[in-house]
Amino acid sequence: MSVEFFKGIGKIPFEGPASKNSLAFRFYDANRKVMGKTLQDHLRPAVAYWHAFASPGADMFGPGTFERPWFDPAGDPIKMAELKMDAAFEFFVKLGVPFFCFHDRDIAPEGNTLAESNGYVDRMSERAMKKMEETGVKLLWGTANLFSHPRYMSGASTNPDPAVFAYAAAQVKHCLEVTQRMGGGSYVLWGGREGYDTLLNTDLKREYDQMGRFMNLVVEHKHKIGFKGQILIEPKPCEPTKHQYDFDTANVLAFLQKYGLQHEIKVNLEANHATLAGHSFQHEVAFAVANGILGSIDMNRGDVMLGWDTDQFPNDVGEITLIMLELLRGGGFTTGGFNFDAKIRRQSIDPADLFHAHIGGMDTMARGLINAAAIIEDGTLQKFVDERYAGWNAGLGADVLARKESLESLAKRVKDENINPKPRSGRQEYLENLINRFV
Amino acid sequence: MSVEFFKGIGKIPFEGPASKNSLAFRFYDANRKVMGKTLQDHLRPAVAYWHAFASPGADMFGPGTFERPWFDPAGDPIKMAELKMDAAFEFFVKLGVPFFCFHDRDIAPEGNTLAESNGYVDRMSERAMKKMEETGVKLLWGTANLFSHPRYMSGASTNPDPAVFAYAAAQVKHCLEVTQRMGGGSYVLWGGREGYDTLLNTDLKREYDQMGRFMNLVVEHKHKIGFKGQILIEPKPCEPTKHQYDFDTANVLAFLQKYGLQHEIKVNLEANHATLAGHSFQHEVAFAVANGILGSIDMNRGDVMLGWDTDQFPNDVGEITLIMLELLRGGGFTTGGFNFDAKIRRQSIDPADLFHAHIGGMDTMARGLINAAAIIEDGTLQKFVDERYAGWNAGLGADVLARKESLESLAKRVKDENINPKPRSGRQEYLENLINRFV
Amino acid sequence: MSVEFFKGIGKIPFEGPASKNSLAFRFYDANRKVMGKTLQDHLRPAVAYWHAFASPGADMFGPGTFERPWFDPAGDPIKMAELKMDAAFEFFVKLGVPFFCFHDRDIAPEGNTLAESNGYVDRMSERAMKKMEETGVKLLWGTANLFSHPRYMSGASTNPDPAVFAYAAAQVKHCLEVTQRMGGGSYVLWGGREGYDTLLNTDLKREYDQMGRFMNLVVEHKHKIGFKGQILIEPKPCEPTKHQYDFDTANVLAFLQKYGLQHEIKVNLEANHATLAGHSFQHEVAFAVANGILGSIDMNRGDVMLGWDTDQFPNDVGEITLIMLELLRGGGFTTGGFNFDAKIRRQSIDPADLFHAHIGGMDTMARGLINAAAIIEDGTLQKFVDERYAGWNAGLGADVLARKESLESLAKRVKDENINPKPRSGRQEYLENLINRFV
Amino acid sequence: MSVEFFKGIGKIPFEGPASKNSLAFRFYDANRKVMGKTLQDHLRPAVAYWHAFASPGADMFGPGTFERPWFDPAGDPIKMAELKMDAAFEFFVKLGVPFFCFHDRDIAPEGNTLAESNGYVDRMSERAMKKMEETGVKLLWGTANLFSHPRYMSGASTNPDPAVFAYAAAQVKHCLEVTQRMGGGSYVLWGGREGYDTLLNTDLKREYDQMGRFMNLVVEHKHKIGFKGQILIEPKPCEPTKHQYDFDTANVLAFLQKYGLQHEIKVNLEANHATLAGHSFQHEVAFAVANGILGSIDMNRGDVMLGWDTDQFPNDVGEITLIMLELLRGGGFTTGGFNFDAKIRRQSIDPADLFHAHIGGMDTMARGLINAAAIIEDGTLQKFVDERYAGWNAGLGADVLARKESLESLAKRVKDENINPKPRSGRQEYLENLINRFV
Repeated sequence: MSVEFFKGIGKIPFEGPASKNSLAFRFYDANRKVMGKTLQDHLRPAVAYWHAFASPGADMFGPGTFERPWFDPAGDPIKMAELKMDAAFEFFVKLGVPFFCFHDRDIAPEGNTLAESNGYVDRMSERAMKKMEETGVKLLWGTANLFSHPRYMSGASTNPDPAVFAYAAAQVKHCLEVTQRMGGGSYVLWGGREGYDTLLNTDLKREYDQMGRFMNLVVEHKHKIGFKGQILIEPKPCEPTKHQYDFDTANVLAFLQKYGLQHEIKVNLEANHATLAGHSFQHEVAFAVANGILGSIDMNRGDVMLGWDTDQFPNDVGEITLIMLELLRGGGFTTGGFNFDAKIRRQSIDPADLFHAHIGGMDTMARGLINAAAIIEDGTLQKFVDERYAGWNAGLGADVLARKESLESLAKRVKDENINPKPRSGRQEYLENLINRFV
Repeated sequence: MSVEFFKGIGKIPFEGPASKNSLAFRFYDANRKVMGKTLQDHLRPAVAYWHAFASPGADMFGPGTFERPWFDPAGDPIKMAELKMDAAFEFFVKLGVPFFCFHDRDIAPEGNTLAESNGYVDRMSERAMKKMEETGVKLLWGTANLFSHPRYMSGASTNPDPAVFAYAAAQVKHCLEVTQRMGGGSYVLWGGREGYDTLLNTDLKREYDQMGRFMNLVVEHKHKIGFKGQILIEPKPCEPTKHQYDFDTANVLAFLQKYGLQHEIKVNLEANHATLAGHSFQHEVAFAVANGILGSIDMNRGDVMLGWDTDQFPNDVGEITLIMLELLRGGGFTTGGFNFDAKIRRQSIDPADLFHAHIGGMDTMARGLINAAAIIEDGTLQKFVDERYAGWNAGLGADVLARKESLESLAKRVKDENINPKPRSGRQEYLENLINRFV
Repeated sequence: MSVEFFKGIGKIPFEGPASKNSLAFRFYDANRKVMGKTLQDHLRPAVAYWHAFASPGADMFGPGTFERPWFDPAGDPIKMAELKMDAAFEFFVKLGVPFFCFHDRDIAPEGNTLAESNGYVDRMSERAMKKMEETGVKLLWGTANLFSHPRYMSGASTNPDPAVFAYAAAQVKHCLEVTQRMGGGSYVLWGGREGYDTLLNTDLKREYDQMGRFMNLVVEHKHKIGFKGQILIEPKPCEPTKHQYDFDTANVLAFLQKYGLQHEIKVNLEANHATLAGHSFQHEVAFAVANGILGSIDMNRGDVMLGWDTDQFPNDVGEITLIMLELLRGGGFTTGGFNFDAKIRRQSIDPADLFHAHIGGMDTMARGLINAAAIIEDGTLQKFVDERYAGWNAGLGADVLARKESLESLAKRVKDENINPKPRSGRQEYLENLINRFV
Repeated sequence: MSVEFFKGIGKIPFEGPASKNSLAFRFYDANRKVMGKTLQDHLRPAVAYWHAFASPGADMFGPGTFERPWFDPAGDPIKMAELKMDAAFEFFVKLGVPFFCFHDRDIAPEGNTLAESNGYVDRMSERAMKKMEETGVKLLWGTANLFSHPRYMSGASTNPDPAVFAYAAAQVKHCLEVTQRMGGGSYVLWGGREGYDTLLNTDLKREYDQMGRFMNLVVEHKHKIGFKGQILIEPKPCEPTKHQYDFDTANVLAFLQKYGLQHEIKVNLEANHATLAGHSFQHEVAFAVANGILGSIDMNRGDVMLGWDTDQFPNDVGEITLIMLELLRGGGFTTGGFNFDAKIRRQSIDPADLFHAHIGGMDTMARGLINAAAIIEDGTLQKFVDERYAGWNAGLGADVLARKESLESLAKRVKDENINPKPRSGRQEYLENLINRFV
């Protein structure tokens, strides 16, 4: 039997908006129904194993500050991994979160050979599956860490050395199969070092072709083993590389189309990656929805005054309301969900801080979703937009979209019909006020 | 006969690197051959009519500072347009630049109806053609201004009002035909307001579909009238809109593929637009070359400490050397060229400042090209890159690219062949020093 | 009697949070008391004459879109100024806003000489004073426009030409006196072009000394004429210049101290200027409060994904709550207030949009203030902070602050007392959740 | 005798611009005289112990890639420190660099108590002094690491816990004394965690006062022990904290003046810190020179497309030329110098890469200095600037600066003398071309 790590903290209750209990939910009532579905089924929240349990609280200017027993440098790596897993599941259960996500290297140590590493992953994943069965916690998605080990310093699939490509392929094969065994809803690829630090030593065309080949291999293997989950690419513009090929959703979409993958792979978006790419989080979600490739979301927030991935927990109800609006418009998640790719601050060294962070994040998402549903049910916003574009549903607009017009015919119409359009107010401030009625 | 505007300034001579004459070229020797082609044929430099002659030197905090006779508010618009054109051609000839570029509204005033506006454009384009014949100056490309007039405030092809789409279509039809008549090498579309200020009033999917339709109409008309030039889209991430759909080259590539246009349309890149999108200029050029869609380049520089399009003249020989390197690797321009989409500062109010700016820009490009050619002829850089990727030309790497491997076969090879790749230095600092040998 | 401009819109009522009337306040109940003061007295909201009435809705890529009768280019300038002023006061009254702010050139046209311009300003200010008396609307502050006219293109007080300095001095003298006559609470100086576009042509030391002299002259004149208001400098990092000397509050503070003005001049902060300088708005307010130089606030919001001053109306209740918290901690405004240095979007062309924008902004501020007061009255946050620093109130900490310790004595204490401090959690996520209880 | 670490690399020779030897200087001829002083005496280049020898090549997404024997985790810490020091001095000598810089924790391991840590520093500094004597290499400056250890996670002098203040004071006392013993020219304080991650848990005023006290203690101790070097603060806007109090030079200047330290402390600037703060490197140097507080410079370059401290080696001759111009105008270094606060890329894993990086950096600085001297000797630039401000040397301008004018007297002069200044061209493009003549 495992030792309790989060002592003094029990199951986090839902206590409603008036609660002053900092260890209770105020909005996340898992079973509350909104637009016909429970909050839990809408949000499908997941804890990220890496930030919550594998990260020691280090930054580029100092080592870890989190004193967790499983970081004992003198400890046996497998024992430490087990201790960490015990604490993780204790946390999942106490928090009442239905999902978690992991990298292969989060749950198991690196071995001397890939075979040895794979063995560790197998062993730890079996342990995890037992705990999943006991607790009901599920796997949202799995992923292979193809960026930490020095062998990947110049990329995985885009490495100038094909031996690294092969190694990465073998590692992904194993992790994909483990994810399948664990019932993961998706499999994610984040190309952390699929990019460049300098164009001087880089053959861009070759590297894209390598990456195109790699992604096709993954998709082929998925079909071969019958994995029903969704393959996802996670866009990020940079960091650790100067430029990452999966810069933003549109960059990924260009890549997918070029290599014939647009019906096979979707995106796993992240708030902080959106803003690093110069987009609002809302933009990336709306763009992915508009192109039918929204798969899952890594929920966090960045500090827009800072130029790196701060991975903070979401706390801006106004912003999250807009995200939920786009999500609901897109039909919501199927295999995806909201994974907290968010870390507590380096100064948040107490185990309780992990709870505060996740409770705040889940409450923020719940409020956002409730707000968004209210906006949709109210209907004023959608009505405004529909009326704004109404001209495209018939007459001239419909003719254009139905390919009945040419530049020539349109020029003729402009002349014959004296077309001289008058601008109409975009009503941005009115709409912003409208949204604030629900926030 | 036209009155001389740039009094006291004659034809700008080439005087070589040692010259201290601020009104002479030090590097741009138009007929100097580099890698088998003259500098002029490599660079195909063009003056932008709008910045050089149509812009009064205003900014958001103050009106124009440039006292040019053609800005007389009491003047007859057509007379003013003629005066402006006289000064423009005087400048082209004195500068010795082979090309210019224009928007329809740069060369001719807006009329009360599209027919009237088109008439003005016809009249002024005929005048221009006479001057082109007299002087030998050619048209690099033409474009229609679909962003200044209030009717376009919510976009042209992406406007919620299909009447605006029709108006824009008619305007582009006319401008494309004028460009053809004038022998333009390309036709450019910059979607200045094809984007949004707020997602709240925007139907993203509709607007993309509208834009896809518009671009297809343009391509169809081009073929119908037999225009041999290249259709180009100019990426820019924002400004004036919050988000422009043609955010960067990859966004454009995703769009082109989605709407079946990837073999019909290329990009007209701009240095300052690249940096606003979070990319180095070099990245955008390399990416467009790698994807076979580099059409032309708007040459300028941004101030990387500022967040708007400063459109300064290029003066960084080191950076331009890298641009020229990518360009030469991509085979150089065919119909495209380097258009100076650059404006003199609001404080640079003397007519002579226009000369200083363009001379500096042309010299910078000439030096960059000469340097880049020397790097290529030296061969050390390319040899380094080729060796770095040599593993992909045979054996494992070649098998992967030839689709002979699967995740399964690769996993087997990793095991059987004990593949455990060792990292090799990327040698970034060595390569940066190497480049500096030529700058 | 003036003609009604905002037809169909009457006095904006307060209707409470449940109201669905887009032309009513939901939170701004002017006379509601919060912490002993009415909302109106806390917020002291002001309309900015320039954005609301003098700006035509132009941007760098297109002319104005707002069709207001006073923009008629054929109109008599003074008549137009009168028409504009009628509409402005109609708006102030209907909105129920207690203050406005203006530049001299907003209310009156530029003449051919300074004397003529001053005459226009006198004439229009008298007209304004009559309206102020009729309506009860007051002047929050006045300011001279020292950046639009070409004479100021290279700066006003920092101009290389001392004649420009003199001209600016004369203009400020007049505007300061007009502000005094109109009962303005403050006089603001925004150094829009007090900076540089390139260091190559700039003597930094000279320009700072010139600016130091200028500010001293203003302060001396203020005392001479007995103006009781506060002199304010408005920090902004750039735009229109590449670098503005009043980059941020700390830059201003360094300047004030260097030129002996730290007890004479305070700052007029602006949200969007803060973020352009790389600071959160909250930071700038907290920094100014901590240094005792918070004078007034230009309320707006920037788009943090864009690099220019978008000057949007505030709508983020969460952010504004934090601003109000800092303000209340600092004791609130005395002569200052919240001026809406915010403009409706170029697409918001209807007169009604001006109402929507200001109503949303005033409601956002009211909600923020109510929230902040609740946080203060709850006390949990302040208690947390006080306890965190409690060590400085006695013992070692107090000794240090009382100058009783040296490096030597402290080194001795570390050794003798075995000082080996243990880190304590900063509890950021807990505190963020705490704030969200009130938002 | 120490074992050779950089095998196969000897003393780096100067071979002149035409050399193709990647392990030779092309411009850094240490004894070449420029404007009466050798290049070495102008530049005073220093190697940063931390980046070159203490950093393993880790980033936030992966551990170190540099295989250096002294990183052996099983090694004895002191033996490892000795091995590292041997390699460092071997490198200094082979490179021919006259200076180095260090943190206390770079040269010696952390002990269990401060006394133990101090003992290690003493022991290693004695070893260093022996090597300094043998090799002639000198100490440019020393500094204490007050940011890595978890005790400093919430700041050193600005920590909410006064015990941390005391600990930091004791550590600085010791490091300052060691720096004095080693003959260091300056002592630097970088406030890496003197700032905040959230204002919610921060008392800004208290923290500034604590920092003011701390800096005064350092200055007092300096005088007490008779240290002749300069105390320096190193500005940086953020990272690792969200906001660092020493944001930029102006922020530091405001602080110094407020706490009476403006004649005691100067700044140690860093290129990458300047750009993170939204300033050009040139701006920060010019601003520090204009205010008489330029002490020393950490030479590196940032990637302006990235938002973190990339600390790359300088390679932009154009930019460095402008830096040298500002430096020479300010009279050059006295106790300061150019420390390479720059790190080789994580992929640059070969020991030789350290040489390439430093050789490139030193050559870039040498070229920049030679260029800047030529610009000064040519005189055209200075003459232009002097003429631009000539109006301030007599008449109206001189009267203003001599405090002979008031707003009133100036208003009278404007009227009486009909002052109506005409703008004059700022000639930015001409000046940029002028600079390019020398680059």
